[in-house]
Amino acid sequence: MDLYVLVIYDISDDDLRGQVAQFLKSKGLKRIQKSAFLGPATPSLIREIEAGIRRLIRGYERVNVQIFTLTPASYKSRIVLGDLRYDEEEDSIVLT
Amino acid sequence: MDLYVLVIYDISDDDLRGQVAQFLKSKGLKRIQKSAFLGPATPSLIREIEAGIRRLIRGYERVNVQIFTLTPASYKSRIVLGDLRYDEEEDSIVLT
Repeated sequence: MDLYVLVIYDISDDDLRGQVAQFLKSKGLKRIQKSAFLGPATPSLIREIEAGIRRLIRGYERVNVQIFTLTPASYKSRIVLGDLRYDEEEDSIVLT
Repeated sequence: MDLYVLVIYDISDDDLRGQVAQFLKSKGLKRIQKSAFLGPATPSLIREIEAGIRRLIRGYERVNVQIFTLTPASYKSRIVLGDLRYDEEEDSIVLT
């Protein structure tokens, strides 16, 4: 069964926040909000993401990162509301 | 089967952001990050949450709200990293 992973974060430090975003992108996830990334995943990729984030945030304070594993059904039932969309190509916020 | 609902949002307007948070709390969800609420849900509660948010955000720009339905297995496999925790009683951020 294919899985998806959703990562959401509250990170005070600007540099660290950028590093976490860059890391998640390097793992093939797409930005869906300012502080949320989503993408297809295997259990081993999810373990890699967890380990990578643990490494990145070590020594930092005021950090909360949450990793959710989603089934295909959960993924498909996602509801998106509002006019704001994250443009994955441009990596910027766009209004629809 | 019991379900859980996760709501994450990017909302520019301070007042609207507060209203959405208040609304989600009134539906029994708990804040898990600055812009993320989680809690047990039924399909009908999820529909209520969707309808309520649609109503709240009507006419506002720069809004993105995403609603995820999680299975109990997804909920249990949630990974939380970092020192920051949202104190549900005090409704404030605490460092652990």
